[in-house]
Amino acid sequence: MHLKADILGIESGGKPTVFLNKSDAEEIGISASGRITISFKKKTLTVIVNITTASVNRGFIGISEEVKQLLGLKQNHVLDIAIAAFPKSLQFIHNKLTRRRLLYDEIYEIVKDVVQGNLNESEISAFVTALSMQGLDMDEATSLALAMVETGEQLDLGKKTIVDKHSIGGVPGDKTTLLVVPIIASMGLTIPKVSSRAITSAGGTADRAEALMPVDLKIPEMEQVVRKSNGCIAWGGSLDIAPADDIFVRSEYSLYIDPMLLPSIMSKKKAVKASHLVIDIPTGRGSKMQTISESDFLAKELIELGRRLGIHTQCVLTNGEKPVGFTLGPSLEAREALAVLMNKAVVPDLVDKVCHIAGSIFEMVGKKNGYQLAREVLRSGKAEQKMREIINLQGGDSKIKIDDLTIGEEKAVVRAKRSGQISWMDNMILIELARAAGAPKDKGAGIIFSKKVGDKVRVGDVLYTIYSEKSRKMSRAIEILSETEPFGIGDNTEMLIHKIKESPLVKRSFIMDR
Amino acid sequence: MHLKADILGIESGGKPTVFLNKSDAEEIGISASGRITISFKKKTLTVIVNITTASVNRGFIGISEEVKQLLGLKQNHVLDIAIAAFPKSLQFIHNKLTRRRLLYDEIYEIVKDVVQGNLNESEISAFVTALSMQGLDMDEATSLALAMVETGEQLDLGKKTIVDKHSIGGVPGDKTTLLVVPIIASMGLTIPKVSSRAITSAGGTADRAEALMPVDLKIPEMEQVVRKSNGCIAWGGSLDIAPADDIFVRSEYSLYIDPMLLPSIMSKKKAVKASHLVIDIPTGRGSKMQTISESDFLAKELIELGRRLGIHTQCVLTNGEKPVGFTLGPSLEAREALAVLMNKAVVPDLVDKVCHIAGSIFEMVGKKNGYQLAREVLRSGKAEQKMREIINLQGGDSKIKIDDLTIGEEKAVVRAKRSGQISWMDNMILIELARAAGAPKDKGAGIIFSKKVGDKVRVGDVLYTIYSEKSRKMSRAIEILSETEPFGIGDNTEMLIHKIKESPLVKRSFIMDR
Repeated sequence: MHLKADILGIESGGKPTVFLNKSDAEEIGISASGRITISFKKKTLTVIVNITTASVNRGFIGISEEVKQLLGLKQNHVLDIAIAAFPKSLQFIHNKLTRRRLLYDEIYEIVKDVVQGNLNESEISAFVTALSMQGLDMDEATSLALAMVETGEQLDLGKKTIVDKHSIGGVPGDKTTLLVVPIIASMGLTIPKVSSRAITSAGGTADRAEALMPVDLKIPEMEQVVRKSNGCIAWGGSLDIAPADDIFVRSEYSLYIDPMLLPSIMSKKKAVKASHLVIDIPTGRGSKMQTISESDFLAKELIELGRRLGIHTQCVLTNGEKPVGFTLGPSLEAREALAVLMNKAVVPDLVDKVCHIAGSIFEMVGKKNGYQLAREVLRSGKAEQKMREIINLQGGDSKIKIDDLTIGEEKAVVRAKRSGQISWMDNMILIELARAAGAPKDKGAGIIFSKKVGDKVRVGDVLYTIYSEKSRKMSRAIEILSETEPFGIGDNTEMLIHKIKESPLVKRSFIMDR
Repeated sequence: MHLKADILGIESGGKPTVFLNKSDAEEIGISASGRITISFKKKTLTVIVNITTASVNRGFIGISEEVKQLLGLKQNHVLDIAIAAFPKSLQFIHNKLTRRRLLYDEIYEIVKDVVQGNLNESEISAFVTALSMQGLDMDEATSLALAMVETGEQLDLGKKTIVDKHSIGGVPGDKTTLLVVPIIASMGLTIPKVSSRAITSAGGTADRAEALMPVDLKIPEMEQVVRKSNGCIAWGGSLDIAPADDIFVRSEYSLYIDPMLLPSIMSKKKAVKASHLVIDIPTGRGSKMQTISESDFLAKELIELGRRLGIHTQCVLTNGEKPVGFTLGPSLEAREALAVLMNKAVVPDLVDKVCHIAGSIFEMVGKKNGYQLAREVLRSGKAEQKMREIINLQGGDSKIKIDDLTIGEEKAVVRAKRSGQISWMDNMILIELARAAGAPKDKGAGIIFSKKVGDKVRVGDVLYTIYSEKSRKMSRAIEILSETEPFGIGDNTEMLIHKIKESPLVKRSFIMDR
């Protein structure tokens, strides 16, 4: 069947999509979300169909920006249309739905079709759901990790030893990576760090690093930075490493499921050819992993998957019950990291965590007394120097000063309403507050903590200060504060956690960073 | 946040959808497929978000036709935008993903959000997939059926006895309903028949009936027809009965799964307040239910669900290994049904099936010798008279003659290549042929069979004739014939079914009619 292109000027979110008039769709015999092939000048593309009654006339095919670019179309170009064969991958997804194990070739076919846009949202979601309900065994996880690597970009530095670190996230204010990367790189080890932006948090490492320098590198730029300085902090989204993961995570997000966590994490390490990897698993009430046994189990699985992928992997369980350091929000956290690198601030919990992680990496590649070594590198100023070198290579200002990082001018000081000891800080509420204030989109939004868990306070003492770039957003944050309480102050003798009066609705939880 | 309406002239397939500029989306803190509320003049609507970089400018919100109509919007109207709370139904879907049983209130909440467009494709698909993997118990099936009834239109005739019939489909050429409805209605019983169009077949009952009369009635029209004539044949799609089902089936279709079959069927019967129901389960090689034990199990479940919903239910297992009667395709089948009603054609298998089903209905409401009674009503001409009355009331020509139903002028006669006995007819290939020729969209396309299973043939005898309205489509049908063979002719001594040389890819199967 022949139809004329009608360029709609509409993007369809990456996936090649077209719009058909209902009558033409019936004529072809295709229904909404079905697949057709469109051919123009020897190029053929499989696309997903939307059906309209009035927006596209009979005899025309509404073309999204994605399809326009892929085929180089203009208004009224005549296209050849046919029903596309059902993708083979659908059969494999169906197999998983009936609880069969998938082989590498089958998983590759699914991941390839996901990346190429040949599967619609429903089909991808069915796969993710089936994995969540049935689980994947270690063979399937290995296949999935490898397929995700194969269908994306890879970084090949041609080196035997490449180290990496990862955190599964969930603890607010965790600027560890901004310190670990320069410490490691300054000792001559190669650490091509790929980081993510916030999904549900108030800032991912990519958001924090972006306060200091550009992070949206392409693979060749990343390679140049790492070849010169041994390290980098690049945003995964622009690198196109394991692009399938970004698509899977969209299905998982609103369903509170996370079946691909392991292959997702490990594929990104494999894609930069990491040989040694330390994974931080923040654990405790208020973080993603609530109990030590859960975290131990996850660690065991990560290490085994690492073994199968040829990546020496160690995990560190860290305290995830309170924010790391005294700041939350991209610029505030970048300030804190820079201050610690410059030895201008004392942030004991942050430095302890950094030295444990950097130290573990050092010891994995044969250096002795890793923790002390990391501390020494930090104290010596070598880490600061290395960070400034990386900032420069990534296109930032290597002479950046702490005050160059501007903070929102709207300010709300929150004080203790009673005296006592701080018994808890609620990570989720703190994140919600920082997000309401504008983080991570507004880099200058966030929170500075004056007190943390264990500190004694008196009525009227400053607990924390919220910063925002916009008064409208600050009002939203204050509104949240009127309904909820992020700090617990008590006498250390109170026993009640909470009462349940009617069927409790479990609140939206974290999604693991990957 | 305030944004100006930008009317895009694009439909989004029923679901309320808007398009945001990427920067505005980040400002709001929403990602693709997320939900926002938009308010205008005291009306507030929850809509799903698409994100664009260029198609919608900053400060504007791209409005689909659906949203435009729901809120009565014009270009540049100023709208108030906020992040929508996560629908409660997502928590319930998540519960099903973790294998918990759902209660009525929870299922109702999900179905309501599906119908109102508050859940995106991924979320709906996750629910369908979870039901498919975990299964629903009888309580959940009952809840789902009731929720589907509650969220759609209902027909209330105020009568105690309302009968109905259903076929789970899969056997081609099944025009049984076109005969059962007038037979039953002519005996004074009320049968408000709701039928579907073809999804994967060459014609649903609504497609066949449409060759004789309009079928896209609204509830008040349907009520009028039934009050006057005791019966009708209306298309479910325009009645808005159990609208959730049409949405669920979209997710199921490409995944070859069917977890909602039972509630889907029974909800539509409950929505017309049926008291007595006969369900036809075509069984055998080449139909949806391949074995008698599978069909028996399905029957048991349907009867139990009927009991819980207050519908007396019986099932009949019928031979599903070959087409019913000698025709396939809407107009050809309508012709055959009309000819049998007029006693102008002898179609033994069709009449036998019709009389078993109509007879079962008669006996359920207390009439004796149902089969004979049905045969007598047919023979007497009362059924024809009743059908013409229904045709007239639905807006068709009550004097319609067989030849008024026009058949495609393109014709391809297929002859036997060898002598022997017809040992099988492949339902799926026959359906594929009829669809390629244009059915059900082109009403005059289809197949007339000259021979059926068991018949003896000689080389050169006509097996069947394909009809099409368009030569292009006829070519496609003939192309299919060059690759595959819909009739098996043998000596009744051949044992081989087929060989398997490499890993077989299971072919796309039927979806049950519901």
